[in-house]
Amino acid sequence: SKNFFLLAGPCVIESEAIVMEVAGSVSEICKKLGIPYVFKSSYRKANRTSANSFTGIGDEAALQLLKNAGTAFGIPTVTDIHAHEEAAMAAAYADILQIPAFLCRQTDLLEAAAKTGKIINVKKGQFLSGQAMKFAVEKINNAGNNQVLLTERGNSFGYTDLVVDYRNIPWMQAHGTPVVMDCTHSLQQPNQSSGVTGGNPQLIGTIAKAAIASGADGIFIETHPNPAVAKSDGANMLPLDQLENLLEQLVRIREALL
Amino acid sequence: SKNFFLLAGPCVIESEAIVMEVAGSVSEICKKLGIPYVFKSSYRKANRTSANSFTGIGDEAALQLLKNAGTAFGIPTVTDIHAHEEAAMAAAYADILQIPAFLCRQTDLLEAAAKTGKIINVKKGQFLSGQAMKFAVEKINNAGNNQVLLTERGNSFGYTDLVVDYRNIPWMQAHGTPVVMDCTHSLQQPNQSSGVTGGNPQLIGTIAKAAIASGADGIFIETHPNPAVAKSDGANMLPLDQLENLLEQLVRIREALL
Amino acid sequence: SKNFFLLAGPCVIESEAIVMEVAGSVSEICKKLGIPYVFKSSYRKANRTSANSFTGIGDEAALQLLKNAGTAFGIPTVTDIHAHEEAAMAAAYADILQIPAFLCRQTDLLEAAAKTGKIINVKKGQFLSGQAMKFAVEKINNAGNNQVLLTERGNSFGYTDLVVDYRNIPWMQAHGTPVVMDCTHSLQQPNQSSGVTGGNPQLIGTIAKAAIASGADGIFIETHPNPAVAKSDGANMLPLDQLENLLEQLVRIREALL
Amino acid sequence: SKNFFLLAGPCVIESEAIVMEVAGSVSEICKKLGIPYVFKSSYRKANRTSANSFTGIGDEAALQLLKNAGTAFGIPTVTDIHAHEEAAMAAAYADILQIPAFLCRQTDLLEAAAKTGKIINVKKGQFLSGQAMKFAVEKINNAGNNQVLLTERGNSFGYTDLVVDYRNIPWMQAHGTPVVMDCTHSLQQPNQSSGVTGGNPQLIGTIAKAAIASGADGIFIETHPNPAVAKSDGANMLPLDQLENLLEQLVRIREALL
Repeated sequence: SKNFFLLAGPCVIESEAIVMEVAGSVSEICKKLGIPYVFKSSYRKANRTSANSFTGIGDEAALQLLKNAGTAFGIPTVTDIHAHEEAAMAAAYADILQIPAFLCRQTDLLEAAAKTGKIINVKKGQFLSGQAMKFAVEKINNAGNNQVLLTERGNSFGYTDLVVDYRNIPWMQAHGTPVVMDCTHSLQQPNQSSGVTGGNPQLIGTIAKAAIASGADGIFIETHPNPAVAKSDGANMLPLDQLENLLEQLVRIREALL
Repeated sequence: SKNFFLLAGPCVIESEAIVMEVAGSVSEICKKLGIPYVFKSSYRKANRTSANSFTGIGDEAALQLLKNAGTAFGIPTVTDIHAHEEAAMAAAYADILQIPAFLCRQTDLLEAAAKTGKIINVKKGQFLSGQAMKFAVEKINNAGNNQVLLTERGNSFGYTDLVVDYRNIPWMQAHGTPVVMDCTHSLQQPNQSSGVTGGNPQLIGTIAKAAIASGADGIFIETHPNPAVAKSDGANMLPLDQLENLLEQLVRIREALL
Repeated sequence: SKNFFLLAGPCVIESEAIVMEVAGSVSEICKKLGIPYVFKSSYRKANRTSANSFTGIGDEAALQLLKNAGTAFGIPTVTDIHAHEEAAMAAAYADILQIPAFLCRQTDLLEAAAKTGKIINVKKGQFLSGQAMKFAVEKINNAGNNQVLLTERGNSFGYTDLVVDYRNIPWMQAHGTPVVMDCTHSLQQPNQSSGVTGGNPQLIGTIAKAAIASGADGIFIETHPNPAVAKSDGANMLPLDQLENLLEQLVRIREALL
Repeated sequence: SKNFFLLAGPCVIESEAIVMEVAGSVSEICKKLGIPYVFKSSYRKANRTSANSFTGIGDEAALQLLKNAGTAFGIPTVTDIHAHEEAAMAAAYADILQIPAFLCRQTDLLEAAAKTGKIINVKKGQFLSGQAMKFAVEKINNAGNNQVLLTERGNSFGYTDLVVDYRNIPWMQAHGTPVVMDCTHSLQQPNQSSGVTGGNPQLIGTIAKAAIASGADGIFIETHPNPAVAKSDGANMLPLDQLENLLEQLVRIREALL
């Protein structure tokens, strides 16, 4: 396909109902628009700011729901892992393993993920340049895996803000990998004194349109039928009913580049 | 027009030949593509890093060449001023007065520019947020002038780099002004030990496409028939013969947003 | 003297009473502690965030009060200028001319200041490295003046924060100039939506002690008998009655380095 | 003791000879100067930029050398762990477990470390504010451990530089924990295209003196008899024969604060 691809879903697997609703709705939209779709959701949140935050419904239960969604709608799935011993477990359920941004330098984790033979999506650390991501790609390649995606998710800009640097799209593509823009976490406002990371969800469209125009190969958007009641990252997720309109615009921008 | 507008020209007025070549070529391209075009060039460079850098051919001589270019091709012109007493002089020749980024907080300068009745284009300081530019707009409005443009030109990102934050486009549009993306100076690499500011001209297209997709109203690009021999900012200017192709892509992106 | 020197006073000249109270009190403290003292106050604030902020009592009136304070207490004075045509006027009253951080790249201003023959204190732009300040020093030297001070006042760290980089002390001393730490403006919190720059005055001691330990030659502190009612920068100024205790600690740190 | 404490040693455990030489020399200096000393060395480097870098001599072998050094010189030891399953192993040999900066948000790791009952030294992420470290302290406290140290090691400042923000010393002390300044890694120059992180070792003294003056409770310095041949972080380590002179100055600054 000449279109961009989409990684989307709720931040964390909260319940079967939410998983199936989101996977089903987004599948339908993407089929209509000709966008290859990968269902994304985390089975556990390991690096919440505060120890009091929700972390998941149990790993195996959550992974099973992820797999069910993929099977039900005939779509691949992606989920993130946080320690090397999780790689094999997650690989039994998901098609793409994602490495969190804070962990993108952990050699053991990258190698364990690589050895599953799955596609590996490495999120660029908020402290790393696009150029320096070549070392993450090399670590995965050296472990015998050539299927790598790299994802931009914003860069530290003072303590309480992130800024997206679109130069990272061509810089990371220069490593020979498709590049994804994470339109959700790029808008986080970290280090809030409440321990809950804030956001600017009304800017998701700005981030996404600029990404497609800059040549991003894929888009990552967390979406939820009702972000206000979501158990993680509610401040940043796109309401599910706004997704189709945004994707239509992105498809038109993509066509304008061809 | 539903199209974006273009501010373009050589960084500094070096000679009549360069001025007329650039103004003529770009006028023709813009006419073809339906892009409102404003010829831009500086009559003096007042804030060069190093005192040894070229600063101009003389103020009045340079301003006269600017005006001649406007008259010859039937296009408005823009130039930048650096001190309040330059406002009236420059206003006698140019249609838009531009305030340099380092000077965007200087009340005397903003007021003197405002009082000429010309359109004022204020470049956002590398140290300022888009939101804080509302105070520059207010200073101009309070001096009786409601014709303001605001220009993003990158934000300090460590000492030797700038990053463009596309959130500033909607944030500055919220002040009720059109917003321009300066695709040239956003790519500067400041604080080089040589005293000559470096750049990444191969990324001009990335910056410009993301800007149009983000909803920028205008684009600012410095261009020169032969950047390698230009007397200022050669490291950042787009070769004139690459401009048309880029503008064609930008027009298509703009149409995709409508 | 082997001690550090102090530039201190109220942010802006508000009234004769405040000027004389501060200059007198600080003179006495510094005499006791063996600290060379320069009375500092601005005769006009030209770059306030908001046009509605207080800017001064009139240039000549304010400068006369500055000079009177110097004469009354036998101390040199420093004030800042904002445009090249102010240099000669200010030089008629003050011993040191200070260049604001936003204007440290303006060649005309640096040269006009240099030509007065006064000592020039250039504040490092929030967007500049200590190394790049060599070009400001060169511009002043090339205008025939070798008496230069350089002042660190914090670096852009995201939109709403500044960070002091103590590496700039040795980096700027390498240009052959004494280096001053501005303990007041380094703590500003710029780009507040109110248009009034905030601060963290309780950290003044941290900034100052680290500066002396890093080898700073001088300290700049804005102080006021009652910061809460000051007409500018009240959020950042040190209450006058806290100054002596801080200076005593700084003197002890300085002695520990010898 | 009213003095600061010192965590020091070679970056990684390379050989018994280096371990014993450094631990012995530094012990003697610290005894003379009245500085409580903790021997620091990593038994494995898990997050090297490049997969080709040296990572260690084997975990258990390295940990045994660490413990031997502690026993031989009667000093406590500190080493860093990178995954939750390493906590118990390392705790069998070391007195303090250190959490790397990139991993300071990993709840599983913090909890596993906490449950060993050892003192936990958490390095502040380059992407975190001092205030936000309260959540790391809470995670450890909630796991039943109240012995926490926090370490500043610089903040992302553009892609290729770090800046130390001394405000983090009082901000982290406000969580009720002693605060350490890592004078070595704060000077790293990350994201070098070579894959080897550079540094500015001549600035170690500046960083350390400012830290003590700012009230830091402890100092962390990597030191090696011959940094040029060290197997990790050679670009940043202090030559062992320069340590005593620096510590003498720091002791004098500390005394000046009392």
